[in-house]
Parts: sequence; structure tokens; C-alpha cells
Amino acid sequence: MAAPRIYNFSAGPAILPPEVLERAASAVLELKTNGHAVDGEGIGLSLLEISHRSSWFDAIHTGAIELVHEVLGVPRSSEVLLLQGGASLQFAMIPLNFARKGAAACYVDTGSWSSNAIKESKVIAELRGHETAVIASSKPSNYDHIPALPDALPDNPSYVHVTSNNTIFGTEYEQLPRFAAGVPMIVDASSNIGSRPMGLERATMGYAGAQKNLGPSGVTLVWFDREWAKQDTPAGVPVFLRYKTHVDKDGLYNTPNTFGALVLKLTLEWVRDHDGVAGMATRNQQKADALYALLDGSSLFKAHAKPGSRSRMNVTWTLGGAADDQREALTERFLGEADAAGFSGLTGHRSVGGCRASIYNAFPLEGVTALCEFMREFERTA
Amino acid sequence: MAAPRIYNFSAGPAILPPEVLERAASAVLELKTNGHAVDGEGIGLSLLEISHRSSWFDAIHTGAIELVHEVLGVPRSSEVLLLQGGASLQFAMIPLNFARKGAAACYVDTGSWSSNAIKESKVIAELRGHETAVIASSKPSNYDHIPALPDALPDNPSYVHVTSNNTIFGTEYEQLPRFAAGVPMIVDASSNIGSRPMGLERATMGYAGAQKNLGPSGVTLVWFDREWAKQDTPAGVPVFLRYKTHVDKDGLYNTPNTFGALVLKLTLEWVRDHDGVAGMATRNQQKADALYALLDGSSLFKAHAKPGSRSRMNVTWTLGGAADDQREALTERFLGEADAAGFSGLTGHRSVGGCRASIYNAFPLEGVTALCEFMREFERTA
Repeated sequence: MAAPRIYNFSAGPAILPPEVLERAASAVLELKTNGHAVDGEGIGLSLLEISHRSSWFDAIHTGAIELVHEVLGVPRSSEVLLLQGGASLQFAMIPLNFARKGAAACYVDTGSWSSNAIKESKVIAELRGHETAVIASSKPSNYDHIPALPDALPDNPSYVHVTSNNTIFGTEYEQLPRFAAGVPMIVDASSNIGSRPMGLERATMGYAGAQKNLGPSGVTLVWFDREWAKQDTPAGVPVFLRYKTHVDKDGLYNTPNTFGALVLKLTLEWVRDHDGVAGMATRNQQKADALYALLDGSSLFKAHAKPGSRSRMNVTWTLGGAADDQREALTERFLGEADAAGFSGLTGHRSVGGCRASIYNAFPLEGVTALCEFMREFERTA
Repeated sequence: MAAPRIYNFSAGPAILPPEVLERAASAVLELKTNGHAVDGEGIGLSLLEISHRSSWFDAIHTGAIELVHEVLGVPRSSEVLLLQGGASLQFAMIPLNFARKGAAACYVDTGSWSSNAIKESKVIAELRGHETAVIASSKPSNYDHIPALPDALPDNPSYVHVTSNNTIFGTEYEQLPRFAAGVPMIVDASSNIGSRPMGLERATMGYAGAQKNLGPSGVTLVWFDREWAKQDTPAGVPVFLRYKTHVDKDGLYNTPNTFGALVLKLTLEWVRDHDGVAGMATRNQQKADALYALLDGSSLFKAHAKPGSRSRMNVTWTLGGAADDQREALTERFLGEADAAGFSGLTGHRSVGGCRASIYNAFPLEGVTALCEFMREFERTA
């Protein structure tokens, strides 16, 4: 590498393990395989050049799905798909496939991503006549916490949709909720999947854009209980947007993102080889604890998310305190100096302002330690 | 490369220029940029790790779009998007956005891909009440030619959809049709885009999965006339599936396939630097002529597509002649020996059987020459 050490706090696409990048680059030059992709003998072709119907890609594809079960703990009773279109396409496909006419599609609103999911359900209901019920929301306090769930749900809901972590506001469920039997929970786990045990096995359906903890952008992990998904698809749903279409063709109805599938597989192998999700959890907790301790002890920096709802993946804060009137200029100065010192991607989302440190699985503890030192020094001299 | 020379006839994902693969692999290790991606100074981060909102990605994204205009000749009056989901998602998005109630969405049926597009229009019409008109089809002769268009179209059609090249049957329009003013032509150009001048500039809208002539799988080039696309989107269309949504956010409504965008850009640079689409056309014609000459002069091999409709990208043939009764065994023997000799991916699609040589832009003439020699020798000794 020609450049000096950069700590990459990007919210996504985000940091990946160096070993994964090296193996991915090698496969772009030439795929090596002995049934265990990117090891073994070269095949004389790039990963990018092989048919998605080849036995080479089949080994990658089925290998990735096996790791989704083994490493992420997705139940074996679930169908696993690697689709395109990101979580945003899932926001639409879920009500298209699973919102029953006359029943409520329930949503917990914890910020931008939930809001977009809710919006899709409402638009689709214009023609389809299901109800969209927002059963809890933390919008009034600018999404600074995970709201409590109501005691009762609408009768016989089609599903309850939750977003396990909000990248923008930096909030996260401690553990995913438990609902009564027969109430299917659907989880958008895009930004904290694989980061710690959080009750994912209780979800009837889940999905995650890969570009945080699972790989590059352009591939979306989707899974759902095989039996539950056998319900009839409503009329008028395009063939491509029916989950059944993809299930019936073993996930190869059309050409998948073959590069994305390989990098997802390599990333899950890296998680497995680093003590799995439990190992990730220990390190992620250390990193988050260090940052929140600094924020809570500071009179300059102020955490956005409330204790009990704080994300271990995206730590958000604003600058204030004594310099409240000069907040904006000070924030800009902080971000400028941080960037110059090699802390890349710390600018907060415009919905919160301030700063955001995304510290996904692959982000090293020493990067957090270095950032904490930098922040303490900045506060001392500000 | 450890393996011996392999000639890659895969129908897609397909062969890419070695220079493109080398530059893509380098960017996976570390992105280098001076406003001109993958040249210049390293940024200390992998291409896979940078935010799609960063100035680094902006240079890649806007650079790719500029090349779509410059190299492919897509009119400047068109909006250009790099979406996900392949051509198959476009099959659904097109009628969702542009099929007007009470009017006809017209299709020319030249094989599997057109058929899938037609099917989506019909499914969507269940709720929406537009008409789906198949105005011409070559289905009765197993899609061995491009059918003639009717003298008259339905009144005031929403659009006419054509597939410029059929990868499975190996047929291709010599030139895209001309329709009366006010009849919007939509072209699925997935498998011959950038291969030769074919009247693409006459299309009101076009799209192409990248995995043949433009790059890796997982990114889809979509363009449409800016003014034409301003028509009202019908009710009930999910936000994500409206073209307007993506236009309003400059193609970054959600996280795009960032790797796919870079490789598409690198591939278009390679086309530009090799005499552009006109240069591709000359070489592609030479390659196709060599193969069709062999097929037409053979008593063992028989071209599937009729003269005048023959694809320069996908050459399809069956084995027959004197050995008609042993056709299947002979085909298997041919494919086995070809594969062992380094000719990879020649198995035909099950709809045609036999063999298929996909010889996209990046496929070298010497590979075709070598295949022709191999086929002549096989016929001599068969």
C-alpha cells in the first residue's frame, strides 16, 4: 500500500478484512478452486468470467449458503437467497408477497430505513388494500432510542417488521423482540448481522444488504422459513418479485452478482475463523465500550443514542457543551482534522449531524483506541 | 496464471479483457485515483470499502456514465442509471412504469428473454388493465430467425419492446427497427451492446445486463429519454421500482453495486481505447464470419440461426448429418473433447441443444481460429 495507514469509519460500503480483499483480488485475476473456492488450483479463468451455471460457481454459491447457516445461525428450516437490489428492494418485495388483504402489516419505526419500509407498504396498499400499522416509533425524539412495543398487536397481523440496527441514528435492539406464536417477525439486519448473538433465530424472515458486515455492495442476503413462505402470492405481483420464483430456481432464476457471492463467502469464512459471531461480539463490545465511555465522560462530545439502545456498530455523537454557539464550525474543524490524521468517513448523516464512527466486524480495536486518543487531545486543546 | 490457455466461450458472465481484470483486481486491493479511477495515487482503501457517497465513487460513477454516452452513443438527452437486478428486473419495471391503462404494450418475441418480458407485462396487467400485444414472433420455427414486423401497430401503443440479440438461439437484428414518430422503442441490448453500430440511438429506452460486453454480473445499464420518462407513474408502484426515484437521486437512491460500476467503466475505457464500437464491429464480424463459414461448409455441424438473423455474439449449432441417429452421443463427445482441449463453455442451451460459442467483444480472434481448426479436425476424424 502506497498511502499511510487510514482508519476507515465508512457506514457502508464499509471496511473488510485485508485477507478477504486479498483473496477477492486474486479470484478476479484467476479463480482457484478445489471445491473450496480460491484455494487450490487455478482454473485459467477469472471469477468474473465464469457462468453462474458452472460447477465452479455452484461451489461458491452453495458454500456461501452453508456458511449462512453455520456461521450466522440461520435455521436450516429457512430458504437462503443471495439477491440483488439491496434492502430497499426487500422493503417492496415483503409487502408484495406477504401483506395479506384486510390484515395488518406491522412496523416498528426506528428511523430512516424503517420509514422507507413503511412507505413501500403504504404505496403497495393503494392497490392491494392491506393495512399498514406502525405499532411503535421513536420519531418524536429524533430516533434516539428503540421504542417499547405495545402490549397488544392488531389481530392476526401478516407480520411485524423490525430494523435490528439503525446506521443513521446509531441505535440497536439489545435483543430482538419475542412475539406470540403465529406472529411472524421479519428483521432487516443489514447493519449488525453477524456482529453478536441477538436472537436472529427467532425471525421468520430476515435480510441484510451485504455492504456492512458481509461483503461488498450489490448482494443481499435474504432468508425465510420454508413452510411459511409457501402461502399464495397475491395476483399482479411480477414474476421476478415473487420469492417463490427464486426458490424454485435455487436462487439462480437470473444471473446473480457472482463477485458479491464470493466475497460474502470469504467474509463469512473470516468470521468463522475468528471465533464466529461470539468472537465478533466480544471485540465489538470492547470497541463500542471504549467510544461510549469517552463520550459519556466528555463535556465536548455528546452521544446521540440513549443507553440501552446504543449501537455497537454505528456510534453517533454531536459536538456541543461550552462551545454550543460555535457548534457547526467546531464540528467542521473536528472532522477536517480527523480526516487529515487518517480517520476517514466520520461525518455524521445529515439527519443527526455531527459525527458517526461505524465500527463493523472488520474494524480493528486499535483504530478505536487511536480515535479515542485523538478525540481526547482535541477536547483538551479545543 | 498456473493453468494452460483456456478459451472462454461462456454465454455470460463472460470473458473480459485481461487489462480490465488486472485493473479491477488492483482496485480491490487499493483504489488508485487522480480523478481518473485506478490510475494515480493510492487512497489507502479498497474500492470495496468506500462509501457510494464519497468523491472517490462519484468520479467512478459519473465517469462511467460519461463513457456510456461517449463510447456507446447513448444520446445526451437520455438519463443513464446503473441499477441492480439484471434485465429480469427491467422486464417488470418497464410495464410497471410505462404501460398505460387501456393502451397496448407491444413486444416482439424472439425467444426466452422476450418471452420473460412478455410474461411480466401480462402478470402486471392483471391488476392494471393494459393490453399486452405480441406483434411478431418466430416461436413456430424454434426462434431461428428475427421475424418481420407487421405493417400496422395497435393504435397509440405505450411502447414497442425488442430484444436486440438472443443469446440462447443465436439470433440478432441486423439493424434495430424504425417505427413511426411517437412510437417509443425499448431495447433489451444485454447481449450485443457495444458490439457494433446497430441503431441504438433510435431507442427511446434501452437496458443491458453488464455481464456480457460491459463487465461483471450484478450491474444493469439502463437509459431512457429524459422528457419521455416524465410521464406520471401509475398508482401502487413501489417507490424503489419507479425510475423517477432513481433519477431524482442521481442514481444513488440506495447503495449501488460499486464494484460493478468500476468494472463497467474500465470495460468501456477498453472499448474506447480499441477503436470504439466501430473497432469492435470489425473484429466481431471477422470472428463470426469464420465460424459461420465453417458451419455452412460442414456436413457434420449445422447452424441453428438463419442467414440474415445470425448473431455475431452467440453462434449456435447442432451436430447431425451422416451421424443423425447418434447425434446426442456425438455432441457429447465433441463437447468433452473440446473442453479437454481448452475450449470452455461450448455447451448449448437446453432450448436448442448442441453447441454455442459466445464470442463477445473481449473474445480473441485466435480463439475462434483455434476452435475452427479443432472442429475441422473433429469432423475429419468423426
